[in-house]
Amino acid sequence: MKEINIAILGLGTVGSGVYQIIEDNRDQIAHKELLQLRIKKILSRSYHLDIPEEKKVANIQDILDDPEIGIVIETMGGIEPARTYVIQALHAGKTVVSANKQMIANYWPEIEEAAKKTGAGFYYEASVGGGIPILRALDDSLQANMMYSIFAIINGTTNYILTKMTSEGKDYDDVLKEAQQLGYAEADPTADVEGFDAMYKLSILASKAFHARLPIEYIYREGISHITKQDIQYASDFGYVIKLLAIAKREKDNIELRVHPTMIPQTHPLANVRDSFNAIFMNGSAVGDVMFYGRGAGALPTGSAVLSDVIYAAHTCQHRYSTFENTKNFISPILYFEDNWTCPFYIRLNLLNVPGVLAQVTKQMGDYGISILSVIQKDAKKDEATIVFLTYPAKEKDVQKAVSDFKKMSVVKEVGAVIRMEN
Amino acid sequence: MKEINIAILGLGTVGSGVYQIIEDNRDQIAHKELLQLRIKKILSRSYHLDIPEEKKVANIQDILDDPEIGIVIETMGGIEPARTYVIQALHAGKTVVSANKQMIANYWPEIEEAAKKTGAGFYYEASVGGGIPILRALDDSLQANMMYSIFAIINGTTNYILTKMTSEGKDYDDVLKEAQQLGYAEADPTADVEGFDAMYKLSILASKAFHARLPIEYIYREGISHITKQDIQYASDFGYVIKLLAIAKREKDNIELRVHPTMIPQTHPLANVRDSFNAIFMNGSAVGDVMFYGRGAGALPTGSAVLSDVIYAAHTCQHRYSTFENTKNFISPILYFEDNWTCPFYIRLNLLNVPGVLAQVTKQMGDYGISILSVIQKDAKKDEATIVFLTYPAKEKDVQKAVSDFKKMSVVKEVGAVIRMEN
Repeated sequence: MKEINIAILGLGTVGSGVYQIIEDNRDQIAHKELLQLRIKKILSRSYHLDIPEEKKVANIQDILDDPEIGIVIETMGGIEPARTYVIQALHAGKTVVSANKQMIANYWPEIEEAAKKTGAGFYYEASVGGGIPILRALDDSLQANMMYSIFAIINGTTNYILTKMTSEGKDYDDVLKEAQQLGYAEADPTADVEGFDAMYKLSILASKAFHARLPIEYIYREGISHITKQDIQYASDFGYVIKLLAIAKREKDNIELRVHPTMIPQTHPLANVRDSFNAIFMNGSAVGDVMFYGRGAGALPTGSAVLSDVIYAAHTCQHRYSTFENTKNFISPILYFEDNWTCPFYIRLNLLNVPGVLAQVTKQMGDYGISILSVIQKDAKKDEATIVFLTYPAKEKDVQKAVSDFKKMSVVKEVGAVIRMEN
Repeated sequence: MKEINIAILGLGTVGSGVYQIIEDNRDQIAHKELLQLRIKKILSRSYHLDIPEEKKVANIQDILDDPEIGIVIETMGGIEPARTYVIQALHAGKTVVSANKQMIANYWPEIEEAAKKTGAGFYYEASVGGGIPILRALDDSLQANMMYSIFAIINGTTNYILTKMTSEGKDYDDVLKEAQQLGYAEADPTADVEGFDAMYKLSILASKAFHARLPIEYIYREGISHITKQDIQYASDFGYVIKLLAIAKREKDNIELRVHPTMIPQTHPLANVRDSFNAIFMNGSAVGDVMFYGRGAGALPTGSAVLSDVIYAAHTCQHRYSTFENTKNFISPILYFEDNWTCPFYIRLNLLNVPGVLAQVTKQMGDYGISILSVIQKDAKKDEATIVFLTYPAKEKDVQKAVSDFKKMSVVKEVGAVIRMEN
């Protein structure tokens, strides 16, 4: 039986999960996979688990210099010193398994370069969607497809917040506070609620799916902190829910990438993805629509993905690397930025309740070529009315121009919300 | 670049899809996978596609004797002659990729035996869930998990029928007729609507997930032909939908396997799996809940799965085989049959509208230890009332005894429906 000696860098939540799974399943893995997994060395700032002293090491060199260690698991998070250690390990010919989305999104080419030099493997299933086996599916199950689109719920914190706002009719601030108390949101929630975390993951996911390196600078990003319970209620009245979606679309060589709150129909499979669950909904040339759902975070689910990489790498006779077509001049993606994409919009305006106001507003939209699918009046008071429009697919830039004009119109008291939609 | 010479057996729907995908994506696959796929020979009773004459062969021997052919794709369906050809190909040292659930469910050990003898590969991703990459996920992504349960919608025809009955309030017979006209159901729909197709797939899926060979004889099977629009409406009133589920549960060494109509909450991720889509919802020790959704049939989705096997097999340096623990005395599953399992039930009775009738019926249920969660009276007429019960989890055998007693009671006009529930 093949013995695999492993080093773990960073024994936080995910690292501890990995340790636990290996300890609990060693016999089962040996029986099923014919692999003896052995955690030989651990480098960590602190140890919450009871770890035998002889496994603890004080510096990375101890791991790099150990010829027995074949696989290094990086579960430190953050960019440094993770990046330096990972590259050193690859240079030392050790296969690296990482869960570090921020590091990969930022330094992928450099890391793969190091891996290729020594023929070591670099695996990162856990970096997107936690326990959901999405990257392997793109590599080993959907190879015969040209992928056209991705719609992904890949941040558990924001999905939890939006789910609670929807099911309990609560305000954003109240739910965020609850989520922080329950440990579902960080004390500084910016990385989650403003869409940075989803952006890192989308960069990795879309790069894999489209075989083109798509760095984070190419991604439009907007968080959920401006979403109100009022808009969630109106969305529901129209048969929609609001989710923070990471969206990637490809049409020939045009690629658009965006992370923002999105209204989707209640009947869409993504609509039933609740609480902190994640899901990735994709469309491919042969497979059609396909969706992967599961826990996007947590010690054991993420550990499950890390272990899947460890076992996969141990069975592989030749590691493979990314097929970024643009680095090989196969295609040069032309990116669609904010100015170019098209989607239906939900627009909520607070208007003065005077004759002719609706005509003024709709004329303005018509002038920009924005067609209205549906309009309802909500909460009309004596001198003020809330009007909600759903539009047909319109150009983002035309909607932004119309909104900018609305803000100057005396009959418009407030542009309450502008939310993109997908069907 | 590695060249892979392929033979296709059977050019029906799936075989044609495979042919089309290879022809359309040859360059992309060569670029991304560094594999040159070449369809060298095709054996088929008829050819709906325009196939070059030199590729057509008249008998299997032509393929078996060709040393260039490395991979044989079996898309004939049915048991014979598929089984004989597959075993001959494996004996000839050729890797076989099959989409044939009926053959695999029935002759899996014999087929794997033949593969092991020559070291050839045997792959069958397309046999369960069409384009959904579920078997590979169990092999290569969830290896570190002990799988506890599977709830699967793996028959598109029945899901289409139940979706239409739900959304349009139509009767089973009318929707079946429509489905037959649209080509979603066969002229003889028995294999689908009576759950045979789902049973074959569950046998393969659960065997993989639990690492124990679980033949079809171990599976309880019940179809959807007795489901009425009335029960679908009542289910909806309670917040449930009715789906034909393939269920597998494992608790230590106890395994239960069943295919039957099941009420699940409208908020469950499986509830939004509509029309002919399939989905497999599972729970594992590390990953927790995970779901895979997509097209369970059709030329291109199933072809996508076949191609994924072809490319995977071409990259593999050593083929691996099933790890059926019971064939290795690792565990001997103790099967839970109808007599043993427990679940909540939906029971609809038509009762005479006389004083004390509800007391009589509920006393009977209480005597068998069946506790009632909820009861509603529907459509009460002058002399007759429809009563619907939802029970707490109860033993199947106790419910069957109670139902048998109801049928003898003079106040019970009819036992309208008994439907199992899952949460």
